[in-house]
Amino acid sequence: QQVINTNGKASGCYSKQLKAMQHSLILSFHEVSPAAERLRYILSEEDDMPTPTLFTEMDTLQREGDELEWKESARWVKFEEKVEEGGERWSKPHVSTLSLHSLFELRTCLQTGTVLLDLEGYSLPQIVDDIIERQIEEGMISPDLREKISFVLLRKHRHQTKKPIHRSLADIGKSSSSTSHAQSRSMNDIADTPSTDQLKNKFMKKIPRDAEASNVLVGEVDFLNKPFVAFVRLAQATTLGGLTEVPVPTRFLFILLGPQGKAKSYNEIGRAIATLMVDDLFSDVAYKARDREDLIAGIDEFLDEVIVLPPGEWDPKIRIEPPKKVPSADKRKSVFSLNELGQMNGTAGGGGGLAEDEEIFCGGLYLDIKRKLPWLPSDFYEGFHIQSISAVLFIYLGCITNAITFGGLLGDATDNYQGVMESFLGTALAGSVFCLFSGQPLIILSSTGPILIFEKLLFEFSKNNAIDYMELRLWIGIHSCLQCFVLVATDASYIIKYMTRFTEEGFSSLISFIFISDAIKKMVGAFKYYPINTDFKPDYVTTYKCECLAPDPNSAVFLPSLDWSQLSKKECLKYGGSLVGKSCKYVPDLALMSFILFFGTYSMTVSLKKFKFSRYFPTKLRKLISDFSIFMSIMTFVGLDMLMGLKTPKLIVPTEFKPTRPDRGWLVMPFGKNPWWMYLASFVPALLVTILIFMDQQISAVIVNRKENKLKKGCGYHLDLFWVGVLMATCSFMGLPWYVAATVISIAHIDSLKMESESSAPGEQPQFLGVREQRVTGILVFVLTGVSIFLAPVLKFIPMPVLYGVFLYMGVASLSGIQFWDRIKLYMMPSKHQPDFSYLRHVPLRRVHLFTLIQITCLAVLWILKSTFLAIIFPVMILGLMVVRKMLDMVFSQHDLAWLDDLLPEKEKKKKDDAKKKGKEKEKKKAKPDDSEEEVRNSGFCCPL
Amino acid sequence: QQVINTNGKASGCYSKQLKAMQHSLILSFHEVSPAAERLRYILSEEDDMPTPTLFTEMDTLQREGDELEWKESARWVKFEEKVEEGGERWSKPHVSTLSLHSLFELRTCLQTGTVLLDLEGYSLPQIVDDIIERQIEEGMISPDLREKISFVLLRKHRHQTKKPIHRSLADIGKSSSSTSHAQSRSMNDIADTPSTDQLKNKFMKKIPRDAEASNVLVGEVDFLNKPFVAFVRLAQATTLGGLTEVPVPTRFLFILLGPQGKAKSYNEIGRAIATLMVDDLFSDVAYKARDREDLIAGIDEFLDEVIVLPPGEWDPKIRIEPPKKVPSADKRKSVFSLNELGQMNGTAGGGGGLAEDEEIFCGGLYLDIKRKLPWLPSDFYEGFHIQSISAVLFIYLGCITNAITFGGLLGDATDNYQGVMESFLGTALAGSVFCLFSGQPLIILSSTGPILIFEKLLFEFSKNNAIDYMELRLWIGIHSCLQCFVLVATDASYIIKYMTRFTEEGFSSLISFIFISDAIKKMVGAFKYYPINTDFKPDYVTTYKCECLAPDPNSAVFLPSLDWSQLSKKECLKYGGSLVGKSCKYVPDLALMSFILFFGTYSMTVSLKKFKFSRYFPTKLRKLISDFSIFMSIMTFVGLDMLMGLKTPKLIVPTEFKPTRPDRGWLVMPFGKNPWWMYLASFVPALLVTILIFMDQQISAVIVNRKENKLKKGCGYHLDLFWVGVLMATCSFMGLPWYVAATVISIAHIDSLKMESESSAPGEQPQFLGVREQRVTGILVFVLTGVSIFLAPVLKFIPMPVLYGVFLYMGVASLSGIQFWDRIKLYMMPSKHQPDFSYLRHVPLRRVHLFTLIQITCLAVLWILKSTFLAIIFPVMILGLMVVRKMLDMVFSQHDLAWLDDLLPEKEKKKKDDAKKKGKEKEKKKAKPDDSEEEVRNSGFCCPL
Repeated sequence: QQVINTNGKASGCYSKQLKAMQHSLILSFHEVSPAAERLRYILSEEDDMPTPTLFTEMDTLQREGDELEWKESARWVKFEEKVEEGGERWSKPHVSTLSLHSLFELRTCLQTGTVLLDLEGYSLPQIVDDIIERQIEEGMISPDLREKISFVLLRKHRHQTKKPIHRSLADIGKSSSSTSHAQSRSMNDIADTPSTDQLKNKFMKKIPRDAEASNVLVGEVDFLNKPFVAFVRLAQATTLGGLTEVPVPTRFLFILLGPQGKAKSYNEIGRAIATLMVDDLFSDVAYKARDREDLIAGIDEFLDEVIVLPPGEWDPKIRIEPPKKVPSADKRKSVFSLNELGQMNGTAGGGGGLAEDEEIFCGGLYLDIKRKLPWLPSDFYEGFHIQSISAVLFIYLGCITNAITFGGLLGDATDNYQGVMESFLGTALAGSVFCLFSGQPLIILSSTGPILIFEKLLFEFSKNNAIDYMELRLWIGIHSCLQCFVLVATDASYIIKYMTRFTEEGFSSLISFIFISDAIKKMVGAFKYYPINTDFKPDYVTTYKCECLAPDPNSAVFLPSLDWSQLSKKECLKYGGSLVGKSCKYVPDLALMSFILFFGTYSMTVSLKKFKFSRYFPTKLRKLISDFSIFMSIMTFVGLDMLMGLKTPKLIVPTEFKPTRPDRGWLVMPFGKNPWWMYLASFVPALLVTILIFMDQQISAVIVNRKENKLKKGCGYHLDLFWVGVLMATCSFMGLPWYVAATVISIAHIDSLKMESESSAPGEQPQFLGVREQRVTGILVFVLTGVSIFLAPVLKFIPMPVLYGVFLYMGVASLSGIQFWDRIKLYMMPSKHQPDFSYLRHVPLRRVHLFTLIQITCLAVLWILKSTFLAIIFPVMILGLMVVRKMLDMVFSQHDLAWLDDLLPEKEKKKKDDAKKKGKEKEKKKAKPDDSEEEVRNSGFCCPL
Repeated sequence: QQVINTNGKASGCYSKQLKAMQHSLILSFHEVSPAAERLRYILSEEDDMPTPTLFTEMDTLQREGDELEWKESARWVKFEEKVEEGGERWSKPHVSTLSLHSLFELRTCLQTGTVLLDLEGYSLPQIVDDIIERQIEEGMISPDLREKISFVLLRKHRHQTKKPIHRSLADIGKSSSSTSHAQSRSMNDIADTPSTDQLKNKFMKKIPRDAEASNVLVGEVDFLNKPFVAFVRLAQATTLGGLTEVPVPTRFLFILLGPQGKAKSYNEIGRAIATLMVDDLFSDVAYKARDREDLIAGIDEFLDEVIVLPPGEWDPKIRIEPPKKVPSADKRKSVFSLNELGQMNGTAGGGGGLAEDEEIFCGGLYLDIKRKLPWLPSDFYEGFHIQSISAVLFIYLGCITNAITFGGLLGDATDNYQGVMESFLGTALAGSVFCLFSGQPLIILSSTGPILIFEKLLFEFSKNNAIDYMELRLWIGIHSCLQCFVLVATDASYIIKYMTRFTEEGFSSLISFIFISDAIKKMVGAFKYYPINTDFKPDYVTTYKCECLAPDPNSAVFLPSLDWSQLSKKECLKYGGSLVGKSCKYVPDLALMSFILFFGTYSMTVSLKKFKFSRYFPTKLRKLISDFSIFMSIMTFVGLDMLMGLKTPKLIVPTEFKPTRPDRGWLVMPFGKNPWWMYLASFVPALLVTILIFMDQQISAVIVNRKENKLKKGCGYHLDLFWVGVLMATCSFMGLPWYVAATVISIAHIDSLKMESESSAPGEQPQFLGVREQRVTGILVFVLTGVSIFLAPVLKFIPMPVLYGVFLYMGVASLSGIQFWDRIKLYMMPSKHQPDFSYLRHVPLRRVHLFTLIQITCLAVLWILKSTFLAIIFPVMILGLMVVRKMLDMVFSQHDLAWLDDLLPEKEKKKKDDAKKKGKEKEKKKAKPDDSEEEVRNSGFCCPL
C-alpha cells in the first residue's frame, strides 16, 4: 500500500490515513466544527500565562563531502528568512507562502507520526532515543533501523552566520567552493552549554528574552522506505547543545526523515510546520495540546483562516514583503475565549476614566492639574534623548527667526516701544514659563499676526489721542488676563468640542499657506532689495559706475568739505550728495545667491527627510540623518555662504541687554499718565484681545492634541489658557509683546519629536508610537532664545535666506498628513490611481469633492478677508468656519460626515440619555467597522474633559 | 439533514455531499491524480482553437426600496475590481484573495447543483426556464417554486458605471441617499440588442475583442430552504440583454440562490467561481468540460496550485496589487499537453535561425544585409509616432551641443582647418548616411575624444615637419577606410563575442563618467569665466568701477585719438589701453544664473521623468510629460533665462555655409603637396585610427544591441563598420572630422524610444516591449543638424548652461540600469536592505563585492590613463579590460561568473561538439533556473551572426 508516486507534481506524503484526515477536515469546516470546539476548550483554560514567543529554525540534512550534516535552511521569528543557497546569506524577511499540498501532507504526518507531549528531555541523544523507542514499540519501524536513525539525527548542525567581510578578501584565489568556512559548525560535541558561536550571534537581540525555540529537522535518507515523523514537546524548555543558532532553549522538535527522491516535498512540509509554530494561535495550541487531536484541530483552525491566492494571478516565486500591520492575535484568539464580552468591556475605558463632568468652579482647571501632575517627573527625564537635540536646534532657529521678524515689525508699528530686544526677551520669558507649567508643553508660544495688527492700531490710536500707549496697553493686558481667568473658571474651553476636523484643518492649512506665502514673499523681496542689472554687458564693464556727486553748491546751506568720491552710498545720501551712474541701483549676485540658499536649504531638507526610506546605510544612521535633516541643511548652506563670502543678509540679534527705545524701562507703571476712566474703559479692547487669544490658543492646542499624534499624557486646555492669561499680564507689566500658541511651529515641534518602535521581529514594520512628550525641549529652546544675545557672534553667520528656506519647509511639512490636503490632491488624480483612503470606499467621490470644494471656498474667503483690515479678527473668523460646518449637516448625510469629518456633539441630549448614547456609539462602530485602522479622530477632544 | 448552521465562522453551504467531494480531493492531490488525468485528456484535444478570454461579472441580489434587483458587485478581466459599497466606485484592480472555505463550498455547489453544458440558449428567460425545468425534473426543487425563482432571476440588472462629474454638482441639496441615479439600469425589457448604456461603456476597450462573458449571479431569497445552484455553458455565446455591463456575449452563467442569512458566504462563493472563470487553466477546462466531473477536476487542479498565506502574517483586508509578472498560462498548461518536448524545442530557435557560420568572403556583411533588408520599409513607417518627436528634439540638441563643443576644440587643435562649420556639416552628413544605410540605425555618430586627440597630434606633427595636414589626413582616411573593409570582409567583428557584461559595462560607465565630469567641468568653468566679486559691499557701490586708461603716450608708437572712457573692455585692450578699477575682473550674476540654469534643467528633467510613476493625471498625459521631459525643461529654463534677460552664454551656430578657414575649400586633393612615399607611410597611423574606430564603434554597438533593449530587428556589426569606413573616406575627402558611434548619445536615443505595452486588463502592469527601431528619428536629427545654420535665430536663445544640464542628465541616465552601478550601490546598503537581485541569491555577497571592486579598480586605472597622453589609445584599452576579464576566470568560479557576467565562449571547441554543447546549455539552464525572469544577457551577441 505504500506506493509513493513519482509524479513530480502531486507528491503525496502517504496515502493511507488521508481519508480519515479529510473527513475530520470536513467536520472542522462545515459543521459545528469539533476542531473549534476542541480549541475553545484548551485555549480558554484558566491558567492564562501567556505562552512564550517561539523562534523556529529549520535544518535540512545535507551531504558535505562524505559526511552528513544538518544545515540551517530557514528561520522564523514572525516572518520567514531563508538561507539563499548560493548567496550564503539570509533572505529578506518575507511572508511564508505555502502550498495547500504541504499543509495537507503535514496534517497527515502529525496523524501518523509519533507525537510526544511533555517529554522529559535533557539532551538530544536521550530525546532521539525516546522517539525511536516509541516508534519501535508502536511497530512503526523495525528495531534494526534504530542505529541508523539515531546516527543521522545526531549529526552536527551548521548554522548560517555572518561572515566578517575582511575574510572575504582572503578568499581571492579560491575560485570555486569557498563555502566551507562560511558557517559556524556546532555539535561536534553534544554540549549542554551554549557555544561561543551561539552566544556571539547578534541575531539574539531580535528575539524576545522569554523566547523558546522550536526546531524542525527534515531530510531524506536511503535506508527508510516510509517516512519517520515525530513531533515532540518537552516538559521543560532545554538548551540542546548546538541545535539552534542562538542560545535559546528548545521546547518543540519536529523531525521528518523520509525515503529518497522527495527532498523538496519534505522541505515544504518543514516550512509548513515552522510557519504554524510561529502562528500566534497555533503556537498556543501547541503549548496547551493534550493529545494529537488537539494539534490536528489547530491545523484545521489554521486552514480555516488561511488566505488563498489564485495561481494565475500571483507568482509563487515573489517573496511577499511583510505587511504594515497584521491582524492582532488577540482578536483571532478571542473567538475561542469564553468571556469574550468581559474582555471587550475591560479595555474600553482606558486613559483615566475622568469622563464625568464635575460641575464645580474651576472644575476644568482642577482636572487639568490633576491629570498633568503625575506626569511631571517624566516630563523631564523623558526629554533626555538624542532626538531632543535636533528638535531643540530646529525649533530654536524657527523661534529666533520669528522673534526677529515680529520684533522688526512690532518696532516699526510701535515706534520701537517694542522692538527686537523686547521680542527676544518676551519670547524667552513667555515660552519658558509656558513650557514649564502649561497643560500641553509641546505648544510653542510666539507672536502672531492678529496681535501685531492690534498693537499697530492701538499705537496709532494712542498717538492720535495723546494717550500713553504703554500704560493703556498694560491695562488692556490686565483686563484680558482677568477675562482669561473667567474663561478658565467657567470651563469655556469646552467650546472646542465643536471644532471638528473641518474647522481645525481649515485653520491649520490657512496658517500653513500664510507661512509658505510669507517665506516666498521674503525671498521675492530679496530680488527687490538687491536688484539685478539685467542689461549688464560684460564687455562694457567700463561704462558701469556709480559716483557720488556733490550737491549744487548754490542750493545747499552748508557743505562739509569732503572728498565726495570717497563716500559710501549711505554717507553720500546723508550729506545730500546724489548718486549718478549705471550701477547705482543694482546689487550684483546677492539676489541669486539668496535664491540658491533659500531653495537649496528647502530642497535639501526635504530630500534628507525622505532619506529615512532609502535603502542606504543602516537604519539608525538613516534615522539620525532624517532627524537632523534641517540642521544639516542649514549647516551646509551656511558653509556654502561662508565659502562664497558674499554679503548676503545675515541673522542679526541684539547684543546688548537694554530696551530698544532708550526712554522706556523694563517696567511699566500702571498709574499716572492716563485719566482714571481709561483703566475701566480698556475692558472693551481687552475683550477683543481675549477672544483673539482664546481662539488662536485653543485651536492650536486642538491641532497639537490631534488623535493622530497619539499623545499619552492628555491635554490641558484650561491650564494652558490660565498661563496664557498670567503671561499676558506679566508681559504687559514689562512692556513686552503678548504671546499665544503658534500653530506651524508647534506642529514642527511635534514632528521633530515623533517616536517609532524599533522593529523587533525581522520584517515587522516600525510603528508610530507617539510623541516624546516632555518639557525639556521647549524650555531649552526658550532658554537658548534668551541667551541668543551672547550667541550673536555665531548666529551672525546664518544668512536669512537659509532661515526663510526653513520656514518654507515648516509650512509645507505642516500641510502633509492633513486629510484636507490629501483630498485636494484627489482632484488631480484619475480615480483609478487614487490611494485607498477609507473614506473613498464609503463616500461617493463627488461628495468628497464637494466637501473639499466647500472647504477650499471657505479658505479662499478667509484668505481675502485676511488681506483686509479684518485681519485683526482673524481668529474669530474661525467661528465662521464652525458655523459653516454646522450648515454642512444639511448638505451631507451624517454617514458621509462621519467619514469625512467628525460628528458634532448634540448638546442638550448629552446628560439625559447616557445609556442611549452607548447604544449609538455601537451603531457608529458598525458604520465604521475598521475604525481602529485608520485612526479617525474622536470628536474634537483628545482627552477626557 | 439540511441543517444550516448559524455559526458565523464556519458557514458551510451544504453538508450532504461533502464527503464525496473530499474523497475526490484526496485522490486528486495524492495519487496519480484522476483530476490531472482528466484534464490531460480534455486539454490535449486536437482542435486547439485558443479559447476566448473571459470577462466575468458578478451581480448580487439586492432590495432597492420595494423592488428586488441585481446589482453589479465586482468584475474580473484578469484581476478583481470590486464596487465599493459606499464609494459607488470601482476599487483598484487587485489579486482576488479567496478563503479556502469558499473554494470548498463552491466545489460542493458544482457537485450538487445543476450543470448544463452546451445549452442552446437565445434569451435569459428561456435559459432560466431550462434550468428550473431541469431542477424540477431531478427533484431538487418543488414545482411550485418555479414562478418565484424565475421572477427573481429575471429582475433587472443595475451596473456600476461612471457618473459624469457635472451631475454631482446638481446633487448638492440631496443630503443622503443620492445613489438612485448613480448607476445605469437595464433589462427593464429583456432585449437582445445591447443597450446604449452598454455600448457607451468605455470599459469595453479594456476587454479583448474576442472576449466572451461569464455571469455570476448570487443572492439570498426568503422562499428557499436549500440552495439553488446552476452552472450553464451555452452552446453559442449570446448577448442576453442587459445582463452584462458591456456588450459582450455571455457564454457561462453561474447562479446561486440560497436561504436567507448567509449572503456573505454566497458572495464569497461567487467570487470564487468568478476567479476560477478568469483563471487561464480553469477557463480552458470550462470550455472543454464534457461533464460535471471535468469541472470538479478543474477546481481540484486549481486548488493544487493555489498559494496559501498564513493568517497571522497577512491581513486579509489588504488588497494585493497585481504583480509585475504572473506565471505564464502556457507553462501551466504545458503540464497537460502530450507533446511537451516538441513544444519546448519549437520556441528555442527564434529570430531567424541564422546561427550557422557561413564561412564565405564577406559572409558577415552578406548576412547583415540579408537580415536588415526585409525590415527596410518598416524602418520608415514605424518612425511616425509622437514619441519620435521628443526623441528627435532631445537627440538633436545633444548632437548640436556636441558638434559645437567638438567643433570648437577641433578648431583650436587644427588651427581652424576643422572648425564648428565643418563639425556641423560632417555630423549631418555622416549621421544621416549612417542612419539611412547602417545595420543599426539607432546608433548616433559623433566626434569622440580619442579622435580629437589624434587630430591634435597629427596637426602638430604636420606643422613641425612642414607636411600638408589635410592631404596627409586624407590618405590616413583612405587607408583606414580600406582597413575597415578588410575587417568587414574577414568578419573581424566576431571578436566582440568576447566582450562580456564586464567589459561592456566598464566601458559605458567610464564614458558616462566622462560625460558627467565634462558637464560639471563646463559648469565650474562658468565660475572662472564670470568671476564673482565676493568682496562687494552694497554700500560701497561708489568705489567699484572699471576705467580704460590710455597707455603712456611716451611709449606708444601711434595713439589713435579716442575717447578712452567710452571704449569697451575689448576695444580698450585692443588699442593698448589698460583697465583700472575694482570691478574690472568681475562679472556679476552670470555665474550664479548659469548654475541655476544648469542645475534647474537637470533636476527638472529628472523630476519630470519620474512623473510617469506619480498618481496624478491620466496615464497618457503622464507618459507624454515623461517623454517630453527634456524638451519641457529646456523650454522652461530658456524661458526663465529670457525673462531674466541676463547675458548668459548662448548657443551660437554658424550662420554662413563656408569653411571656417577661408584658405581651404570643400574638397581636399589627394596629390601634389606631400612626397609620394607619404601616401604609403600613412598606412601606419591609419592602423591606429582603424583600431580606435573599430573598438569605439563595435563596443557602442554592443551596448546598443544589449539583450535588455529587446531589439527585434537584429544587429549589423559588419554593415555598420562598412559604412563607418565609407564615411571615413568621404569625410577625409571633404576635410570633415571623422565620426564614430557615440555611446552616451546612442543610449539616450534608445531610452527616448522605448515602448511599453498599453496595459490591457485592468491591473496588468505595462511591459517593456522594446525600442521603436527605425531610421526616421536618426535621419531627422541629422537633417536638422544640417539645417541648423538656418535655425540660428531660434537657437541663439538657448543658454549653454541649459545644454550642459542636458549633458549631465544624459550621463546620469546612461548609468542607470547598469548592473555594475547597482552593484556599487550595494556597498552602501546593509545586506538586509539590498534589493532581491537574482545574483545575490546565488553568489555570496563578498564575491559580488570583490567582482565590483575589480571593476572599479580597472575603471580607476583607465580614468588615470585617460588623463595622460595615453588617452589616444583609449578604446584600445578596452582590450585590456577583456584580458582582465579572461583572468577573472581564475579568481571566480564559472557559476559565479555566469550570474555576475557572461561566460566566455570556448573557441576551439565551438565547431566540434555541437551536440555536447546542447547538453551543456541545459546544464547552464539548471544553474540559472529563473533565467527568463532576469533577462541575463546572452554571451555578447544579441543576434545570430
